[in-house]
Amino acid sequence: MPVINPERLLGDLYELRKIGAYKTGVHRPTLSPEDVQSRQWLAERMQRAGLEPVIDGIANVVGFSRVSGRKMLAGSHIETQNHAGWLDGALGVIYALEAARAFAEDPACSGLGVDVVAFADEEGHFGNFMGSRSFVGVLGEEDIDKARDRSNGTPLRDALAKAGYAGRPRLQIDPSRYAGYFEAHIEQGDTLETSGLRIGVVTAIVSIRQYRIRVTGEQNHAGTASMARRRDAGLSLVRLLAAIDRRFPEVAGERSVWTTGRIVLDPGDPSIVPGGAEALFQFRDSDPAVLDRMHAALVELVAQANRDGRCPIELISISASTPAVMDERLQAALDKAAERHAPGKHIRMPSGAGHDAQYLARKIPAAMLFVPSIGGISHHWTENTSDEDIVLGARVFVDAIADALKGE
Amino acid sequence: MPVINPERLLGDLYELRKIGAYKTGVHRPTLSPEDVQSRQWLAERMQRAGLEPVIDGIANVVGFSRVSGRKMLAGSHIETQNHAGWLDGALGVIYALEAARAFAEDPACSGLGVDVVAFADEEGHFGNFMGSRSFVGVLGEEDIDKARDRSNGTPLRDALAKAGYAGRPRLQIDPSRYAGYFEAHIEQGDTLETSGLRIGVVTAIVSIRQYRIRVTGEQNHAGTASMARRRDAGLSLVRLLAAIDRRFPEVAGERSVWTTGRIVLDPGDPSIVPGGAEALFQFRDSDPAVLDRMHAALVELVAQANRDGRCPIELISISASTPAVMDERLQAALDKAAERHAPGKHIRMPSGAGHDAQYLARKIPAAMLFVPSIGGISHHWTENTSDEDIVLGARVFVDAIADALKGE
Repeated sequence: MPVINPERLLGDLYELRKIGAYKTGVHRPTLSPEDVQSRQWLAERMQRAGLEPVIDGIANVVGFSRVSGRKMLAGSHIETQNHAGWLDGALGVIYALEAARAFAEDPACSGLGVDVVAFADEEGHFGNFMGSRSFVGVLGEEDIDKARDRSNGTPLRDALAKAGYAGRPRLQIDPSRYAGYFEAHIEQGDTLETSGLRIGVVTAIVSIRQYRIRVTGEQNHAGTASMARRRDAGLSLVRLLAAIDRRFPEVAGERSVWTTGRIVLDPGDPSIVPGGAEALFQFRDSDPAVLDRMHAALVELVAQANRDGRCPIELISISASTPAVMDERLQAALDKAAERHAPGKHIRMPSGAGHDAQYLARKIPAAMLFVPSIGGISHHWTENTSDEDIVLGARVFVDAIADALKGE
Repeated sequence: MPVINPERLLGDLYELRKIGAYKTGVHRPTLSPEDVQSRQWLAERMQRAGLEPVIDGIANVVGFSRVSGRKMLAGSHIETQNHAGWLDGALGVIYALEAARAFAEDPACSGLGVDVVAFADEEGHFGNFMGSRSFVGVLGEEDIDKARDRSNGTPLRDALAKAGYAGRPRLQIDPSRYAGYFEAHIEQGDTLETSGLRIGVVTAIVSIRQYRIRVTGEQNHAGTASMARRRDAGLSLVRLLAAIDRRFPEVAGERSVWTTGRIVLDPGDPSIVPGGAEALFQFRDSDPAVLDRMHAALVELVAQANRDGRCPIELISISASTPAVMDERLQAALDKAAERHAPGKHIRMPSGAGHDAQYLARKIPAAMLFVPSIGGISHHWTENTSDEDIVLGARVFVDAIADALKGE
């Protein structure tokens, strides 16, 4: 099997970490000067690894293998959330680069091709998964026209032009070129850490169903409007959210999660009975049957609230993605490699977060590997994974790709 | 008894309504050009009524009576909330002016003196009850130094200078001058309207107890943090607010009100488990025993939540005023006048809103009269009261003042 070089792997991660360093983390938002610098840095690293690097019209960086035959696509993303962690997407990109290098150095693997990719803007500074959606052909020019940086309002077109990428063609996947797609990522949760495990083999990327819950009441003076007379939109919303809190554990799956991320009362004055109230609510699971059960429970709770309450409540569905199931053969390759390097210390698990792999899975078999996140922390500058786990993950990742390609 | 002139009364209210007219309401925030114009207009009206007008260093407008002997102080405020109603404070000021005029015209009353007052900024654009607090001597120069317009940040000092009031002395009450204070106001609720009544005689102005409820959780990824692991500050807050909703009806008084006017989740992103949550909560009653019971219940619910929950909750008391009890002799004068003009159509009731009378009551006997608000609406440009009710209210108001002064 191919042999990775831990010093080279960690050295690259440390070097990349310096570009946009923030405390012990990194601030490298999509198409910021630091992000553009890191893409250039990556392209040079690909070149040195014998790959043919291309930065395309949406800022995807792809290092094409010169090896003949079907190749594996591998990678992740390179930009970060604002003031976030050093590993989040970088880990998967450098793992893929190390795979290409390890194969090239091993006579038994030098015939195995790996295309290395860093998809642009997985972190959604300008939109959702712009790079991988472009690569699989579901991002139109009009989507790019409309996209703006959520932090400063800069149009994506302007940011691409400033980076020198405007007018370049956007690369599109040729599915016949690939045996599949492998992506490694930090877990971002604490399942592995709290279970004493070291490798997660992803079964599916969960679906997220997002809703806006809008309550219409009657704005009133908080001193003169009697309790009997009020139509308090905020109170109706609190009652509904409390009912969801009681009901959802009965219908949810074992790994389901549900979250109210935002509540806004209108006008939000301490002495005014709210005339309007709104919440953003979402739930996630990888099982469509569980998702449907949760949706049905939500619809019923809103209907109940509308029967019992004084304020009409609207349930508006904002988005509902389909769970992306990972390829069984590629999962088996990851299981096998994990059992070799960390016997009994690996588990199959769904991914609660979205990843580029969910778009790649629409075109080619896809697989994902997780390494432990210390304290379950991610999207924060304190995010970290032990060097031992980073190196172990790379060994499993590279072995699994070799195994999957050889099985072709 | 003195006779009011309904055409003159309504004519003044209609004329005042034109200054800062907004739809069918008025936009005349404190010390705006329109507000300054209206103070000048009022001073001229006072002059014509034979009063000696003074606009003081905080923008209070007082028309001093030239009659000898103890006088009645009467009035309210003249500025409005933003884009609000035409009657709110203006009604009470013009009632007081009409009282002074009606007395002057009636030989039997011409020896009765009324000082007419429009207190500045009752509506709290720059602070709380700036004008009446200044008049009763509980507003320091440093309070004025710090005060800024809540809508645009303009320092009160600058606004006073622009209006030409800077440097003027601030008038202070001489309690020995007055038999008491009368204030008329729209009810701002619908108790009178829904009961088919036309006059409310205020027993007390309720106390408001205000709290900030602050929950500390742990910010997390809404996809990767399991339900078991989460410390969701927003969810803990929702559970507490739902518990308050269940418990408060058991401890509250018949007329108590309680309100959550604002809820903020931090960071407020749909895909992030809130790491912090805050609510502004208040309750009001005129009975100190009821207020104490509600406070105790709130403290106990927070303690319970801290025992049961995963997120520490702080209960921070922001303010707690004392109920202002209205003078019994002046209430009786209002009852008597109400029974004369609207037999069986009047009621004694607390005021759920704060009014300048609560500060005047600290120095002299105070009383308040309410007229019905159509639909219970106030602080909105659709606020209204029928002309018949406006005129009836003035008759009761003027008679009661005459009666109270004659009883001196």
